[in-house]
Amino acid sequence: MEVENREGGLKIEVCYSPALFPYYENRNAVVVVTDILRASSAIVTAFMNGVERIIPVGTLEEAKSYKERGFMVAAERDGIVRDFADFGNSPYNFTPERVKGNQIVYSTTNGTNAIQLASSGSQVLIGAYLNITALADHIKKSGKDLLILCAGWKNKFNLEDTLFAGALSKMVLEDQQFFTICDATLGAMDLYEAAESDMLGYIEKVAQRHRLKKNKLDDVIAYCHEFDRTRLIPVLERSHLVPLPDLI
Amino acid sequence: MEVENREGGLKIEVCYSPALFPYYENRNAVVVVTDILRASSAIVTAFMNGVERIIPVGTLEEAKSYKERGFMVAAERDGIVRDFADFGNSPYNFTPERVKGNQIVYSTTNGTNAIQLASSGSQVLIGAYLNITALADHIKKSGKDLLILCAGWKNKFNLEDTLFAGALSKMVLEDQQFFTICDATLGAMDLYEAAESDMLGYIEKVAQRHRLKKNKLDDVIAYCHEFDRTRLIPVLERSHLVPLPDLI
Repeated sequence: MEVENREGGLKIEVCYSPALFPYYENRNAVVVVTDILRASSAIVTAFMNGVERIIPVGTLEEAKSYKERGFMVAAERDGIVRDFADFGNSPYNFTPERVKGNQIVYSTTNGTNAIQLASSGSQVLIGAYLNITALADHIKKSGKDLLILCAGWKNKFNLEDTLFAGALSKMVLEDQQFFTICDATLGAMDLYEAAESDMLGYIEKVAQRHRLKKNKLDDVIAYCHEFDRTRLIPVLERSHLVPLPDLI
Repeated sequence: MEVENREGGLKIEVCYSPALFPYYENRNAVVVVTDILRASSAIVTAFMNGVERIIPVGTLEEAKSYKERGFMVAAERDGIVRDFADFGNSPYNFTPERVKGNQIVYSTTNGTNAIQLASSGSQVLIGAYLNITALADHIKKSGKDLLILCAGWKNKFNLEDTLFAGALSKMVLEDQQFFTICDATLGAMDLYEAAESDMLGYIEKVAQRHRLKKNKLDDVIAYCHEFDRTRLIPVLERSHLVPLPDLI
């Protein structure tokens, strides 16, 4: 992708791994956390289906302790639902019957730690293709830098989060307030351009698809790449995710 | 790039930042350290021009202490030569007149730390376009996994090292002994494919080119992207770089 070479205005950066976050941290940025397969897609789906709030917790011990206190808990590691939990990480688990009007405690391999890490930003939003245009519109109105934090896989780079970061960066960069001189953003946009004409074909090769397929959990891949199923944006308020108020 | 979906054989992985190295570390791997603009290109050039050994040191204090003991020292930070040093980080500094038959102590912003980090691998090699085919040939004969460590920029992802990692991965992957299920490798190869038809045009946008240009140090960019100027491969032996013996 051709980009204008300028500095000045609101900057866009992409961080490919929670382990790199200290080098990108920016208190003036809206931080969008993404974990396309599957945590951020599941969280957006839960709000579409009426969840009241989601309490992200980093460790399984915390999740278990919430369960013992009567909370509904979604918890997985390596894609597999934990036995004490009510359900796991598939967006299809977060049905209206289960989530409407409820609070849910949620712990996943990569996504929930990334959310906690991101809380040093000026605002933390959860991003997925399912809410990408609403997200881009909100960021353009924010007057803040944009930092996209890819949850990755156990601190390694992953392609599916990077492609999403590229898609969102491209949308936001259309607004002349924004610029980027971040190689990770440029790389993400170029990878998205290489993939976008056949996204599901491209996703065939990514490591997480192999992991999900091995566990027969790959039924959600097409759904997790659908654009704009909602205008809802989950936002971190103190330590809970709620729908961004001005969009309710 | 289409890749065969298989596990088994010798694996290729790419690590985009020294800060991510703990998650990729592999004692059975040949680790190729690359810092295309400019440390690894400069090191390969120094061996082309007859340097006897290079002593990579992480800190400027160490470099200064070597200088005080009479060593020839190349040292830079943020592209700028340090005042106590004999010269900086441009490959053009490592002329035969200066380096032939000599030992040189070398400290750079990103490259030398990456070399020290990589030393947990079974062998540490220095990679640049200047020696890429010799490198690929050696790796194919090694019987070891391949891990490419990009020096990056202050632990951030950079494009120029990633493109090189993609180019080298593609060459090695032609050998059926090797496979990859590493998203960072797949991403690097796709970015290389996007860039290769006009590499210098592509490099126009990377952050490091802007940094070098600002300091009038961008005269080396075309040279640092020339393929196969040598068959020499610098290898880490104990804590020194020397030419790989079987290729002398």
